[in-house]
Amino acid sequence: MSLYKNFKFKITKKSNKSKARLGILSTPHGDIQTPNFIFCGTKASIKNLHPHQMREAGTDIILSNTYHLMIQPGGELIERMGGLHKFMGWDGPMLTDSGGFQVFSLGHGADSNELIARNKVGGKTNVTRKKSLLKITEEGTYFKSYKTGEKLFLSPEIAMDIQRQLGADLIMQFDECTALHMDKEYTRKSMHRSHRWGQRCIEHFTKHDNGKQALYGILQGGVFLDLRKEAAEWSAQMPFFGNAIGGSVGETKEQFYEISALCSEYMDTSRPLHMLGIGAIDDVFANVRLGTDTFDCVSPTRLARHGGAIIKGVPGNKINLMNAKFKYDETPLNANLENPSSSKYSKSYIHHLLKSKELLGTQILSQHNVAMMNLLMREVRKAIQEDNLDELEKEWIVN
Amino acid sequence: MSLYKNFKFKITKKSNKSKARLGILSTPHGDIQTPNFIFCGTKASIKNLHPHQMREAGTDIILSNTYHLMIQPGGELIERMGGLHKFMGWDGPMLTDSGGFQVFSLGHGADSNELIARNKVGGKTNVTRKKSLLKITEEGTYFKSYKTGEKLFLSPEIAMDIQRQLGADLIMQFDECTALHMDKEYTRKSMHRSHRWGQRCIEHFTKHDNGKQALYGILQGGVFLDLRKEAAEWSAQMPFFGNAIGGSVGETKEQFYEISALCSEYMDTSRPLHMLGIGAIDDVFANVRLGTDTFDCVSPTRLARHGGAIIKGVPGNKINLMNAKFKYDETPLNANLENPSSSKYSKSYIHHLLKSKELLGTQILSQHNVAMMNLLMREVRKAIQEDNLDELEKEWIVN
Repeated sequence: MSLYKNFKFKITKKSNKSKARLGILSTPHGDIQTPNFIFCGTKASIKNLHPHQMREAGTDIILSNTYHLMIQPGGELIERMGGLHKFMGWDGPMLTDSGGFQVFSLGHGADSNELIARNKVGGKTNVTRKKSLLKITEEGTYFKSYKTGEKLFLSPEIAMDIQRQLGADLIMQFDECTALHMDKEYTRKSMHRSHRWGQRCIEHFTKHDNGKQALYGILQGGVFLDLRKEAAEWSAQMPFFGNAIGGSVGETKEQFYEISALCSEYMDTSRPLHMLGIGAIDDVFANVRLGTDTFDCVSPTRLARHGGAIIKGVPGNKINLMNAKFKYDETPLNANLENPSSSKYSKSYIHHLLKSKELLGTQILSQHNVAMMNLLMREVRKAIQEDNLDELEKEWIVN
Repeated sequence: MSLYKNFKFKITKKSNKSKARLGILSTPHGDIQTPNFIFCGTKASIKNLHPHQMREAGTDIILSNTYHLMIQPGGELIERMGGLHKFMGWDGPMLTDSGGFQVFSLGHGADSNELIARNKVGGKTNVTRKKSLLKITEEGTYFKSYKTGEKLFLSPEIAMDIQRQLGADLIMQFDECTALHMDKEYTRKSMHRSHRWGQRCIEHFTKHDNGKQALYGILQGGVFLDLRKEAAEWSAQMPFFGNAIGGSVGETKEQFYEISALCSEYMDTSRPLHMLGIGAIDDVFANVRLGTDTFDCVSPTRLARHGGAIIKGVPGNKINLMNAKFKYDETPLNANLENPSSSKYSKSYIHHLLKSKELLGTQILSQHNVAMMNLLMREVRKAIQEDNLDELEKEWIVN
């Protein structure tokens, strides 16, 4: 079949010690080396950073969210403006999700992190939101616009159509993202419906394929290992280009890694594997060892907005620049990084900017955190090449 | 005398049609061509823009505010960090004010623009604030910190000391900025006190001069022409490096320009003349013709934060990107400018960013507006060279 003829995922090296691997993921907008990190530009913008500032920080690939963009400014507008790449000025590889994640996570009346319990593994803050999910049917999902309150509908076919309008290289099937609190029966039924939706996505995608996009299937099944196994086996039978692990991955990191290990055992491991919404540094190390090729998370820029800077080899891998101990600190965040945010300003200055509520402070931290995640991924790739991931992890993660 | 030996102001061309002139203002951090625009980095940061983004937009010189910096982070800290240039990463010429402007304008319980009636000429918004001015004595001024409420004191000597700690190239005498609503008797008494303060500034400055700074005297006198004349004549007798016009300049542009014309008639015109807090494009043209060499105003970045972009040759010299008419507009703000904000993004995209409350939107507009003010000043200089300022004004300002 001619699906994905402009895409390729080539595994160039496999670790002897784990399932960690190096790869090259080729798209119409260029190649990326894997493992890699995909930065969230939810509303067609990485928070307060230009695309060239992302490049300056070593970024290879970004994503945007279909749910937000279908509401503002709408897929038609972006298509008319020449697609998301041109619209936002990013010329590299790009991914969009299907909208399903936000429809369900925001829709169930909770912050996405709370809902899927990724807060437990990612250390994020819970935020309660107004419910916006109206009805789930076999056909699709009715929900309210976060912006206007108007009733909207999203189905596998519509999710494919909008993502084609947006024009990202890597796109996601429409699925239901199930939460930790949902019981096994609901999770099973929901997963089976997501599988049927996945089938419909493939059919619709194939019918309208323009050669510019590659489709990922999403593995659900919550915390239930037999369901996760079933999802992994299902995905392996389906002509997806890549796989992604979604939904609740448990309350503890042990549970998360067990699920991740099981999925990668039964899925088609010749395909690229994306871990949805995960960006904690220990999770990156653990999942790289379990065969994950790409990650995404809002954490680098979100941490920045709270005054946090990612640092290698300090407890928690972050420092808070609001802390008075940085008042007279003349050192930069990281003198070895070339981007100006990491190397040009003293911690004292950034502390002052935060104390003064000057936006440049969080802008500086945002670019720095992006640069640090890219540094992490470069070092992870080098460590896989040299088969010394354990040593690298000890450099990054200390107590 | 050895004052200002590392500074020079050389007038290189005088217009045949007006008092407009070209000059080169030399400082220890480089030369700037005049007329020029000085951008406000109030708290040691141009709002949400890196220094290199200011350079990218063609900026030659910036300023910071002593009042804000003495409170946060304090002059001692900035001195310890190597001075304001190093602290904020700006290597070009820099100016600081004396703190007097904010002490009095914020202190009288009104926004600075309302107080000095510059809103009437600049079209800005009034904002009422809590009074923070406590007492004015011959010695100096007691006021409350905007941050902690603690009682603070500023005098001519302290203003000189703090500005020396900050280390800007061009510094300002301490003065009282009188408001439009103040009567002639108060304005006269205040002006005379400001003259005595100016004398004390010179004495203290001279005593501690390190060769790295040049002092400007400030002309007060409100809307009273005889007082303005007296101030101009006073300043001409004093060993200031430059002059600045401060205080209320009237309710109408006619009154403003009359005051400006009178000042420049009686002051020492071999010195550079700075127009404090003025940045409207018609005011720039009018005051350049009256002999003004530099301007400063928060308007370029403030306008950006309200969704406005400076545009040449449209009514009001601005467009509001929130306006729905830009929804499908594929053109950039200014394709001829090299900075990415002006030339890389469509108005459609910027409109989307503003609608989505994405900070990148106002960041883009900020850099664009800075670039446009610098374009204006470049074109003004070229027009003075070619003696066709009237033609240039017709290109910029339309009804």
